[in-house]
Amino acid sequence: MTSASSNNAGEKFLLPAGLGDGLPPEAGFEAAIVERLVASFARWGYERVKPPLIEFEDSLLAGPGEAMAAHTFRLMDPISQRMMGLRADMTPQVGRIAASRLQNMPRPLRLSYAGQVLRVKGEQMRPERQLGQVGVELIGAEGEAADAEVVLLAVEALTSLGVRDLAVDLNVPRLAPNILVEVHRRELIAALDRKDTAKVTELAGDQAPMLLGLLRAVGPVETALPVLESLRLPPPGAEVRANLAAIIALIRKAAPDLTLTIDPTDHRGFEYHSGIAFTLLGRGVRGEFGRGGRYVNHAGEAATGFSLYLDTLLGTLPTPEGLKRVFVPFGSDAQAALKLRAEGWVTVQGLSAGDTRAEAKRLNCSHYLEGGHALALKD
Amino acid sequence: MTSASSNNAGEKFLLPAGLGDGLPPEAGFEAAIVERLVASFARWGYERVKPPLIEFEDSLLAGPGEAMAAHTFRLMDPISQRMMGLRADMTPQVGRIAASRLQNMPRPLRLSYAGQVLRVKGEQMRPERQLGQVGVELIGAEGEAADAEVVLLAVEALTSLGVRDLAVDLNVPRLAPNILVEVHRRELIAALDRKDTAKVTELAGDQAPMLLGLLRAVGPVETALPVLESLRLPPPGAEVRANLAAIIALIRKAAPDLTLTIDPTDHRGFEYHSGIAFTLLGRGVRGEFGRGGRYVNHAGEAATGFSLYLDTLLGTLPTPEGLKRVFVPFGSDAQAALKLRAEGWVTVQGLSAGDTRAEAKRLNCSHYLEGGHALALKD
Repeated sequence: MTSASSNNAGEKFLLPAGLGDGLPPEAGFEAAIVERLVASFARWGYERVKPPLIEFEDSLLAGPGEAMAAHTFRLMDPISQRMMGLRADMTPQVGRIAASRLQNMPRPLRLSYAGQVLRVKGEQMRPERQLGQVGVELIGAEGEAADAEVVLLAVEALTSLGVRDLAVDLNVPRLAPNILVEVHRRELIAALDRKDTAKVTELAGDQAPMLLGLLRAVGPVETALPVLESLRLPPPGAEVRANLAAIIALIRKAAPDLTLTIDPTDHRGFEYHSGIAFTLLGRGVRGEFGRGGRYVNHAGEAATGFSLYLDTLLGTLPTPEGLKRVFVPFGSDAQAALKLRAEGWVTVQGLSAGDTRAEAKRLNCSHYLEGGHALALKD
Repeated sequence: MTSASSNNAGEKFLLPAGLGDGLPPEAGFEAAIVERLVASFARWGYERVKPPLIEFEDSLLAGPGEAMAAHTFRLMDPISQRMMGLRADMTPQVGRIAASRLQNMPRPLRLSYAGQVLRVKGEQMRPERQLGQVGVELIGAEGEAADAEVVLLAVEALTSLGVRDLAVDLNVPRLAPNILVEVHRRELIAALDRKDTAKVTELAGDQAPMLLGLLRAVGPVETALPVLESLRLPPPGAEVRANLAAIIALIRKAAPDLTLTIDPTDHRGFEYHSGIAFTLLGRGVRGEFGRGGRYVNHAGEAATGFSLYLDTLLGTLPTPEGLKRVFVPFGSDAQAALKLRAEGWVTVQGLSAGDTRAEAKRLNCSHYLEGGHALALKD
């Protein structure tokens, strides 16, 4: 919905690259989507918090927030003379709120958030530098039921918006690091991540059969999980696998028809995750709806959650039709217009005397007010 | 709802002065208020736009935006190497959108907006540095009906939220500048603004009786407008007065019971206004709900509109009660919880086996799920 600055009418109205204006009707639709998502989250007990757009960089970029340090605009606070960051991600802020102002609330703590985030530079696949982020955090719960809950909540919230053919891809970013020996460790994680079987074979030595097995355990859980379970993994790897299988069982029980895939060697972007991670995808949709997973927040609490980014969602859902517009000629009774609004009309006031039908048409109204009623414009 | 950083649990979670976290339930209520306001605006044909949080300072701070230059955080854009500003006011952005991307839309153009604005320093009366701003702009309409429309819209939108005893104070910032001679002009505008009759008498010479008359024409329109109309004003002043009287007549016709006051010499904060300006006040409410008025936007178009600031509004309206919460024990059927949500419950999942009633109570639930039904916790 935001569009490139080159659409603007002249140099003086140019916007910086990656920043755009939301226009009618998409801007209103985007806001409606956010509120519907947050309402879905509230139905599961997730209560909304609203952290500030800027805060001190020490708290914003601590722990998992550090991953965003290079993407974060910095500002000097003239009051404290300390550096502040303009948030590039709201999840560290939610962790901070849980650990400070809400530290005495019972756990698990369920929080939701929605807001704008800014990034110094866009990415190749996502050039926007301002994004709408909306999501949840489930804080202070370690077990598999918590992981399953956030996946199921994401699915219910997206489905209720009208997203069809949703797929959840589950990843276990801790798996490879847990089973690899020290030799060629980094190279092997990278080779597994890009599914480079030749490199894995070359570097893995004795572990090659196991790692090549992991690379085959990809796809729908119905076929890929049995492959994964057939592999002989050292105990730390078997433990991660058991955790994944337990979460899949809980998700499957609640959502038997959900498309659920696994990719045990995917590692990108999940560097901070301490348990399963997941990506929300739509069949035939470019980009992802969002991602989530388990981590330890910078206050040291177990946390899981997800973030949705509105650009993919807006590009997927059809913008709904607007309400009917009725033109109210100048001098009409205010009560008549009020009554029409109460009945669900959009009333567009005439601001001077003139040709009612011509004005109605010019202002994109389908009806006009006459004798207390909305009459259809026929032409 | 935002509160001082000193409430935070430690140095590392401290927030910068004037910035705070919105917590449950106020953060959710704030978002609901915004959406209800924007929905009220939409009923009058105002369509939502969403300008970016940052843009080049040349466009952000041009024309009327210049008033906010000292309050605006600046950032260097690493892509263009140009300076950007973090918006302190959304109205210049809406003017820019009208003049660029929406330049070919028919006039009058009715736009609404809602978003966060940031200020380098707080004010004495409003120490917050981040504020929620929501409002409308009516662009490309010169007549009195346009001024009346935005006042009536503000009143309808605030009233529909439950604001009682609303008062609209109308000002005519052009009046004094239009009738004063060159001698002592600035001093007289300032003296009139602070109602300093002694200074006005001392400086005004022949004009003293007229200016002292203006200072008496303050209060409810029923008594103050006749005083204003009894004064002999030079033609440029009489024209401004006639404009005010015509707008008052239009507002009165549509809203006979609205508390409407005038203050013809009030000038503060309305430096850029080219016609009437107004302030939205609540009886017994500290601060104002918002303000608006007529000006010429930096694209040269006639514009009127208003901005509401959410802090006063949130401080006035009672936070509504939350939905009823039902605890869903671990292992319950997912369909049973789904059914409860569809019926309007908030479902709070248990994440491990345990004492159902104790968990329900601990997690602030009034009910728990048993045998497919929500049972009340009695204790």
